[in-house]
Amino acid sequence: MSKLVFTPWEVKGNVDYDKLIKEFGIQKIDETLLKRLKKHTKDLHYMLRRRIFFAHRDLNWLLNEYENGNKFFLYTGRAPSGPIHLGHLIPWMFTKWLQDKFNVDLWFQFPDEEKFLFKDKLTLEDTEKFTYENALDVIALGFNPKKTHFLIDTIHADLMYKEAIKVAKKITFSTVKATFGFTNDTNIGSIFYTSMQAVPAFLPSVLAGKNIPCLIPLGFDQDKHFLLSRDVISKLGYYKPAIMHCRFMPGLGGIENEGKMSASEPFTTIYTTDSEKQVENKIKKYAFSGGKDTIKEHREKGGNPDIDISYQYLTFLEEDDKKLMKIYNDYKSGSLLTSGLKEIVIEKINSFLKNHQRERERAKGKVDKFIFEK
Amino acid sequence: MSKLVFTPWEVKGNVDYDKLIKEFGIQKIDETLLKRLKKHTKDLHYMLRRRIFFAHRDLNWLLNEYENGNKFFLYTGRAPSGPIHLGHLIPWMFTKWLQDKFNVDLWFQFPDEEKFLFKDKLTLEDTEKFTYENALDVIALGFNPKKTHFLIDTIHADLMYKEAIKVAKKITFSTVKATFGFTNDTNIGSIFYTSMQAVPAFLPSVLAGKNIPCLIPLGFDQDKHFLLSRDVISKLGYYKPAIMHCRFMPGLGGIENEGKMSASEPFTTIYTTDSEKQVENKIKKYAFSGGKDTIKEHREKGGNPDIDISYQYLTFLEEDDKKLMKIYNDYKSGSLLTSGLKEIVIEKINSFLKNHQRERERAKGKVDKFIFEK
Repeated sequence: MSKLVFTPWEVKGNVDYDKLIKEFGIQKIDETLLKRLKKHTKDLHYMLRRRIFFAHRDLNWLLNEYENGNKFFLYTGRAPSGPIHLGHLIPWMFTKWLQDKFNVDLWFQFPDEEKFLFKDKLTLEDTEKFTYENALDVIALGFNPKKTHFLIDTIHADLMYKEAIKVAKKITFSTVKATFGFTNDTNIGSIFYTSMQAVPAFLPSVLAGKNIPCLIPLGFDQDKHFLLSRDVISKLGYYKPAIMHCRFMPGLGGIENEGKMSASEPFTTIYTTDSEKQVENKIKKYAFSGGKDTIKEHREKGGNPDIDISYQYLTFLEEDDKKLMKIYNDYKSGSLLTSGLKEIVIEKINSFLKNHQRERERAKGKVDKFIFEK
Repeated sequence: MSKLVFTPWEVKGNVDYDKLIKEFGIQKIDETLLKRLKKHTKDLHYMLRRRIFFAHRDLNWLLNEYENGNKFFLYTGRAPSGPIHLGHLIPWMFTKWLQDKFNVDLWFQFPDEEKFLFKDKLTLEDTEKFTYENALDVIALGFNPKKTHFLIDTIHADLMYKEAIKVAKKITFSTVKATFGFTNDTNIGSIFYTSMQAVPAFLPSVLAGKNIPCLIPLGFDQDKHFLLSRDVISKLGYYKPAIMHCRFMPGLGGIENEGKMSASEPFTTIYTTDSEKQVENKIKKYAFSGGKDTIKEHREKGGNPDIDISYQYLTFLEEDDKKLMKIYNDYKSGSLLTSGLKEIVIEKINSFLKNHQRERERAKGKVDKFIFEK
């Protein structure tokens, strides 16, 4: 992924994305599909216009079903293991938009055992704490409590385990070894885990006693789980879930250097609970710049927004295409300096977080309303 | 196991049992330990006198705790996959005796996913049916409903899964591969399963919020699970469960030929629901005889009770040592013919089953009382 850069209007480094799409065996979200989506949603979310959601599995099938009156549900999730950063919010913001546009239920999984099993030092007390903290960030995005159902693996295991073993029976160690790179030293909980991640893709069908299509918006690294389980789910008699794949928001250190934003690297990451001052410091100090070495050179030759992290963050947060295009052009032409660009992104993030943090506080009394009642 | 034979008074084929005990790293139940047990139980169950329960882990430790006022609970179980036969009942009858003598709680696990995961053709509908049917046989033995708690894995997974993943995190694929002979083609549910079997050994401690010793009476083939999990349970901060190991009741075809009674081989097995006529036919037709080829020869040289299945069954079912010894001597001397011995065991089994079947019918309204209330 390190060679991929993108503007709001087109994917650059097509070769790599094409390679990725080919490797995963997934489809590009193309103009035809966007037009088809737009028939239902009236407008197109900027994450679609900018191909932040860039690929899919079976979205045309899902729309066929929808157009035939067979409504779908949404499924996404979060493995609690640390605080939430901006990168985590991206696919959930889009999921919220899908919920509103299609007026559908969302099943949001908190697989609170996943990171416990995969990380030596993480305890279940940690994951319990983070489940609550992370739930606040999810709720803060404005999901409809009547149509949003949190599944917490250890709490809802009486519903989920019975379904997970049906999946597990059809997956061998060879398969998870090849898919996830497991070895003989991998613990048997980690080996089993993917079965639990498959469950919310068909549990609503089990509970409703009828087959309901499922759409999973996800960070594309999660596709592996469903690459594995889609066939299994189909063998169990349920629809294969459709998937929409999201890019990663890069870390502050830059696309080339660090890949995605990571909660475990505080200097490359902006958390949802960061103060205005912290955001300002992080952007000023760590946000990788596409600017030239001197102001003079920058004015003459212009900066490179495609590798500039401040600009890249704006593509994830600034809804207004015209505004974004102007910033792109100004930076590229040299009329906008790095310092100016950083001011713009600092203001954008802080204004976003001010709202988010207010909603996050208000979410504190609401968590129970979202937890699925057995 | 195929070379092992035993009388009510001593274990024959000591070499093999010693080998087994050595291989498993378990202790013989010896005279000293029996005396110690008898201090508490007043009499000794015939399965102890006859070393049907022949070995243990940490029973002396358990009795230390008990004598210091630290009561234990019992844990045993049944993986539902077919009907119950006489061989299944043996360790449960002994468990019932322990419950009565020590006045302790019993946690009885129905791991209804186990055989589903391990047997290709078994469905969860099958295991659900067998869970109910098998529960009737357990209840028929007279367990105290106030002190007996059924755990059904798929139903109680909300209590159990959270504990199972703590176990699973500490067991690698290498370990289960070596212990259970798994391969890369083993499904990931089977790989995980042993974690679930470990849970009832410490779940009562979790629920009570204090550490309670645990004693597991089991068929010795189940020892492997705890060989694996005892150390893990200890690392989690709970007592290692103590274990008492039971021999198998052999199949009708004989010790040499078939080993243990198996529910999947109807011609070698007496089910708890067999009619008097079925029992009679099976014993007459299939029970391997230690008698001589002709009556004349038998009268002269005597039979061999050590390999005679009818006699062996009596060691599992006839409580009266004197009666049993007389039968042993009469058969060995030749005064008791195979036909006579078969009449004795047929009557013994049918009288046992008559009572069992009556209690089994009465159990039909009682199952809910035994299922642990969450």
